[in-house]
Amino acid sequence: MKKRLGPAERIYPMPVPIVVSGSMGEPRGFTSSWINAVASTPPTLVVGIRKSRASLEMILSTGEFTVNIPSPELVEEVDYFGTVSATKADKFALTGLTLMAGATVSAPIIAECRFALECKVTQTVEVGEYVVVFAQILETWADDEILDDDGNVDITALDPLVYIPGAREYHRLGGKVADAYSVGKRISERA
Amino acid sequence: MKKRLGPAERIYPMPVPIVVSGSMGEPRGFTSSWINAVASTPPTLVVGIRKSRASLEMILSTGEFTVNIPSPELVEEVDYFGTVSATKADKFALTGLTLMAGATVSAPIIAECRFALECKVTQTVEVGEYVVVFAQILETWADDEILDDDGNVDITALDPLVYIPGAREYHRLGGKVADAYSVGKRISERA
Repeated sequence: MKKRLGPAERIYPMPVPIVVSGSMGEPRGFTSSWINAVASTPPTLVVGIRKSRASLEMILSTGEFTVNIPSPELVEEVDYFGTVSATKADKFALTGLTLMAGATVSAPIIAECRFALECKVTQTVEVGEYVVVFAQILETWADDEILDDDGNVDITALDPLVYIPGAREYHRLGGKVADAYSVGKRISERA
Repeated sequence: MKKRLGPAERIYPMPVPIVVSGSMGEPRGFTSSWINAVASTPPTLVVGIRKSRASLEMILSTGEFTVNIPSPELVEEVDYFGTVSATKADKFALTGLTLMAGATVSAPIIAECRFALECKVTQTVEVGEYVVVFAQILETWADDEILDDDGNVDITALDPLVYIPGAREYHRLGGKVADAYSVGKRISERA
């Protein structure tokens, strides 16, 4: 039996990267679970940012940011970056996270994150108290240790943290269920 | 040591719901991993849809769709809905998925999915070969069996399927790492 729960912004699951803007000397960072790819021509992502976020002004003035995918050992840092404002604390100094220069943007990437993306803002759309920022993905980075022999990301080695809205929980990724573009053929073959 | 992999639309992890449009009599469905919430005033999500997708025309002409969160036992159906065009097959007939009327939109929801959202299109943005559809979330539905005593979604009972781009794998959600809005206080307390 299905029950109506009312309108709520719930997609299960969500990613939970740390978005970094600014520069090596003046970095800003916040955690976002409202982010995803939306197009591949060119590779584009969107991120919904509350207008009151200190990072938003930096992202819009520089037109650049990075997206840093954390693993479970960074869960305290992820939560801290999501709940404390950059106007109230030097978040990078307090966490001790290490910043590295990117290749195509001035915004730094977080060395402790095993996968990161460099992004350039292409347009913005206002939705109530939020700005949805569209950005082209200019570069991606992965740690040597998470690449397999073919140079592809080994998801078990990346071990991305997962966010569950509503319950407000961070989870690990679980085991593989099936290969995409493959397991559905069992249904096609019935036709 | 970090290595540059080039631009690619990779966020880890992604959700992988089935998006349904049309009506009980003429349903369309496709699987999307490029979807997420972006705002809460009002509750809003975006979904990036390739212009060649048969569902896009239906979504834009009716202005409505539903988002249906699948669990691992639906992995064959999820993959099939993501890889076969509605112009080539009656996907609902072949999978045998059960459609139910929604409450606020004409687009049906999938009974076998334990959580679903009803959405109304609010605006669209073109990005190359894609259309990014913005939609207001008008209602959410959950199976009785996945609600805890307080009426909240029990994520272990929902057991949402997770998508890994690049590797093109479906995974389960893993165990809880920590509570959000809580574990980061260990860092705030250092200040």
